Amino acid sequence: MMPAVTPVELPAEMKYLQDTMYVLGGKWKMMIILSVCTGYRRFRDIQRSIPGITSRMLSKELKELEMNKFITRTVYDDSPVRVEYENTAYCKTFGPVIQEMISWGKQHHEALKSN
Amino acid sequence: MMPAVTPVELPAEMKYLQDTMYVLGGKWKMMIILSVCTGYRRFRDIQRSIPGITSRMLSKELKELEMNKFITRTVYDDSPVRVEYENTAYCKTFGPVIQEMISWGKQHHEALKSN
Repeated sequence: MMPAVTPVELPAEMKYLQDTMYVLGGKWKMMIILSVCTGYRRFRDIQRSIPGITSRMLSKELKELEMNKFITRTVYDDSPVRVEYENTAYCKTFGPVIQEMISWGKQHHEALKSN
Repeated sequence: MMPAVTPVELPAEMKYLQDTMYVLGGKWKMMIILSVCTGYRRFRDIQRSIPGITSRMLSKELKELEMNKFITRTVYDDSPVRVEYENTAYCKTFGPVIQEMISWGKQHHEALKSN
């Protein structure tokens, strides 16, 4: 069901929706968060788990997610140097959003199949 | 909480997430759906309810939403001609996604305020 929003409440709700879209901006951030939260920590592993993302895009998006404190980047002084990404506790608050988007995609896939 | 996705299940979940992002592509579609579902039916009313959207963008996005059968466009033979947009039943299946995004934006707003 649609959220029961009346025109009077709309400006506030619209602003919250716009804020969220702004933070998750672009088509990749939610997928990167899902990948990192699933346990992928290395750049190449994250990249392989997201069909279609280029190294350049992933690098740019990871930097933005790090700046916004959704992801941490740790450099381990191994040889060769090892870099690992991890989600922060705050990043996990996206869980319900991402879960609903996965559920929608799944039911949409099934709706298309049954046509 | 994050959805409990294991690396084995990730490719399917990632695909569903990617499908949803594709359908909702861009930064405006979810806001337009929220506006129309709240009861705005006329082009100018929808536009006024979405801060920052231009006529050109709204027109383009409404056409795409109409093509994907999330929105209907009806022309009434009044004088002057009246055009109204309405959400379809299928459009309402986005409700939980949009609701979770609004909730996230709201708690994010409160988290920033309390810092």
